[in-house]
Amino acid sequence: MVHFILQVGADDTTTLDKIIDSLTSIANAHRGDPNAAEISLKIGRVSECGIDDSMDKVGPKVLILGAGRVCRPAAEFLTSYQNIDQVHVVVASLYQKDAEETVDGIKNATAAQLDVSDTESLSNLVSQVDVVVSLLPASFHAAIARVCIELKKHLVTASYVDDSMSKLEQAAQGAGVTILCEMGLDPGIDHMLSMKMIDEAHAQNGKIKAFTSFCGGLPSPAAANNPLAYKFSWSPAGAIRAGRNPAVYKFLGETINVDGSKLYESAKRLRLPELPAFALEHLPNRNSLMYGDLYGISKEASTVYRSTLRYEGFSEIMAILAKIGFFDAENHPLLQETNRPTYRIFLNELLNVNNVSTSNTKVNGEETGGHDDELISRLMMLGHCKEKELAVKILKTIKFLGLHEETQIPKDCSSAFSVICQRMEQRMAYGHNEQDMVLLHHEVEVEYPDGRPTEKHQATLLEFGKTENGRSTTAMALTVGVPAAIGALLLLQNKVQRKGVIRPLEPEIYIPALEILEAAGIKLIERVET
Amino acid sequence: MVHFILQVGADDTTTLDKIIDSLTSIANAHRGDPNAAEISLKIGRVSECGIDDSMDKVGPKVLILGAGRVCRPAAEFLTSYQNIDQVHVVVASLYQKDAEETVDGIKNATAAQLDVSDTESLSNLVSQVDVVVSLLPASFHAAIARVCIELKKHLVTASYVDDSMSKLEQAAQGAGVTILCEMGLDPGIDHMLSMKMIDEAHAQNGKIKAFTSFCGGLPSPAAANNPLAYKFSWSPAGAIRAGRNPAVYKFLGETINVDGSKLYESAKRLRLPELPAFALEHLPNRNSLMYGDLYGISKEASTVYRSTLRYEGFSEIMAILAKIGFFDAENHPLLQETNRPTYRIFLNELLNVNNVSTSNTKVNGEETGGHDDELISRLMMLGHCKEKELAVKILKTIKFLGLHEETQIPKDCSSAFSVICQRMEQRMAYGHNEQDMVLLHHEVEVEYPDGRPTEKHQATLLEFGKTENGRSTTAMALTVGVPAAIGALLLLQNKVQRKGVIRPLEPEIYIPALEILEAAGIKLIERVET
Repeated sequence: MVHFILQVGADDTTTLDKIIDSLTSIANAHRGDPNAAEISLKIGRVSECGIDDSMDKVGPKVLILGAGRVCRPAAEFLTSYQNIDQVHVVVASLYQKDAEETVDGIKNATAAQLDVSDTESLSNLVSQVDVVVSLLPASFHAAIARVCIELKKHLVTASYVDDSMSKLEQAAQGAGVTILCEMGLDPGIDHMLSMKMIDEAHAQNGKIKAFTSFCGGLPSPAAANNPLAYKFSWSPAGAIRAGRNPAVYKFLGETINVDGSKLYESAKRLRLPELPAFALEHLPNRNSLMYGDLYGISKEASTVYRSTLRYEGFSEIMAILAKIGFFDAENHPLLQETNRPTYRIFLNELLNVNNVSTSNTKVNGEETGGHDDELISRLMMLGHCKEKELAVKILKTIKFLGLHEETQIPKDCSSAFSVICQRMEQRMAYGHNEQDMVLLHHEVEVEYPDGRPTEKHQATLLEFGKTENGRSTTAMALTVGVPAAIGALLLLQNKVQRKGVIRPLEPEIYIPALEILEAAGIKLIERVET
Repeated sequence: MVHFILQVGADDTTTLDKIIDSLTSIANAHRGDPNAAEISLKIGRVSECGIDDSMDKVGPKVLILGAGRVCRPAAEFLTSYQNIDQVHVVVASLYQKDAEETVDGIKNATAAQLDVSDTESLSNLVSQVDVVVSLLPASFHAAIARVCIELKKHLVTASYVDDSMSKLEQAAQGAGVTILCEMGLDPGIDHMLSMKMIDEAHAQNGKIKAFTSFCGGLPSPAAANNPLAYKFSWSPAGAIRAGRNPAVYKFLGETINVDGSKLYESAKRLRLPELPAFALEHLPNRNSLMYGDLYGISKEASTVYRSTLRYEGFSEIMAILAKIGFFDAENHPLLQETNRPTYRIFLNELLNVNNVSTSNTKVNGEETGGHDDELISRLMMLGHCKEKELAVKILKTIKFLGLHEETQIPKDCSSAFSVICQRMEQRMAYGHNEQDMVLLHHEVEVEYPDGRPTEKHQATLLEFGKTENGRSTTAMALTVGVPAAIGALLLLQNKVQRKGVIRPLEPEIYIPALEILEAAGIKLIERVET
């Protein structure tokens, strides 16, 4: 990886534009060529590393890395927490402007500019605070953790522990440093609630017979106003790829493997008895068995199942879009031409619509359903849809996404996957005033050796995005940012004894964390049924 | 009916309490005795009829009768409307305090005390305004309309035109007075949207092949947190009775009659393709054929169907509660005794649970499922539930409503119906911060004689309750109150030429009304599909 750092004066935008254009074309020319040097573009105003007078302030200090949506609820929570000395927060971002926008209006929070790949600047900032929270993409975490270990500072992330992080276990232990990972929503609150339910059952001599967890970030029902009942708040590519991950879980004693290509087809309808108005479905979420081990219930539980929530019907449509070929990531011959095909021509190609007119015929100046009928018949003939009703639903989705339109596909789409990602990003974005929603639901079946009837313990979290004083906070940002901030708080207060790379699986973390979460207004509903 | 009007000084609460107690016991003693004189209790602070200086003000004046929830959005809308001279609103209620609370903080709105059965006081108030809006229960409207006709003042209501109102047609015509009824949500906005869609189709030479309408006032999905996925914002009795009304509609040319006792069983699952996250069902809403006539489509439409929306599963449970006998309104022998039975004893009686212990047995101090199992088996043996899964769902509902509890049924419950109404009122009320929701969806299929493909025209309204500055407005109050206020506005502006008893079926009403409604922030989504 070669890094170019461009320092161009803010007024010199014409020159900057030219440089960006030429670098973009170099980057595009090398796309798909695995031997080409990878070029990453980071464009922004680079200012002096933001060490300002905030560091002189007395009291606990937390450095938050990254100024995305999740940062603000974390910074707000930490700076407004009443039960310890005033916490000061420094929000550092590659772009000073982003950091400044994030801390705008938050007392006791300061913005700093920082390129985390610049280890010296990173170390400089880290050395001046008590705890670091990284809300950057997961790939940055290990490098940040190394700096934290060296400077003996605790670190919190909301990301999964990956191999590069696991390898730092001994170093962190040796330095007496806690690297508290998976401290968001999923992973995060899900672990805390799971372990609370499991530990409580064990304390009563209960055995966990079944552990089932459902979690999803979704549009609120009113915002789920499209055939897929889904919206993206960022690039769709990652979410679509996640829907193609293989999965493994245990169900009634049997280990079930789901191939990535069959994941969407494995979705099952779900109605939560306490929230029956939501038409939901669930998909197995990667390796559930690993969580059986982490939670210490692999031996006793005959069902261990972690899943992703969607609204009912999403997966059926996604499975058929996959069958049509819309998730194929390799370059498509039609899309390599300078003379760009239209969406309709490309769709006809994928569905082998050949010997018919590609347009709907016009009668008295109005379109008839010629092309529509042909698409429906192709969807059925190719075996993608068994019933006409489903083919009609797919046609509606195709039209909603504009995949039938007679406009040219842009140059930067070279695969079917990039075409559908571009369309989904355009047409499935959250509209102004539309809310997202987070729903997490755990069910734990507990058996008792003394003959008491089996109990079903449930825990549910349901949050919606909010707009206050004209500023929106998504439910996702809130439920990821606040737990991460609580992690920092517990570390500031020396309430976490464990060192090394850890998750919030221990009572010393989850008990205070869940209490503080509820006090912060994130409502968790727990329930026991026989 | 004998009326007692008690005038007691505000400080003299002890005396007032004694009088209320003794009247309550007289009323209770006579309950269920059809020959006894009916005693109605109205308790409140009675002040001088509120003719204040507001009547001296220049500009249009509207009298709103009734100070329920619907009143405030209507008063707010009228007093803040910008496109005419400042409207002054007088809100009159039986209790001055209710009227005062309703107008609190609304500029140009005044409170008045009024007993509408006192014709002289009513006439006095009506004579001083330009238009009257009655938001009182429908049974009051005809008497109010007579006063309005006499004084040549227009009247708006949000209630269905009933026989007593229809009879005033000629008198209203003769006096040149418009009695604009059905100017709320359902009836109201539903009519306006229907007629707009129908008239537009007719203007294009289209024929209405099918008219289908779904409308419901429901808890928001997050507030639908019980097995019935329903909440009551007032007494459940009316809503439950409405679920037992017979219905008639036309479906694909066939007239379908549904017996009142089978209404819940006729519910059908519904997913709106544009809002697929809502798990809905629909029940036919009384006489749909009448609307085919009113809308002028009886001859051309082979389907005319108006329905009530609920969340999926509601009707299945209600149907079984009916089968158990919980909707039987006649006095039940067990409930006539001074020695009150417990809910559990009464439930056992309804389910013929006799020769078993009525309690769950206790093992190691914990209950086992003995009584639960017995209830499930009775539900199945009596044929109320065919499958165990359903019986378990009913058991959950019974437990949620506390119909299995070992506490005494209060004295004022003398029928099974009064028992379930009391429990539903207690346990299915909206909680603090819980939102209601209004969803209205029309579908009109239009056929064209020139060979154009059949079109499906859709219109959707989705509103949620709101809290602003600590004051909550339900979606229902907003969508009933604002149309009624718009009716008053159009009458103030002399925009309605038709006289007599009318509904908002004419373009002179629905075109401006729908425009003003949208401008007021009540969003209507219209869509055409082939």
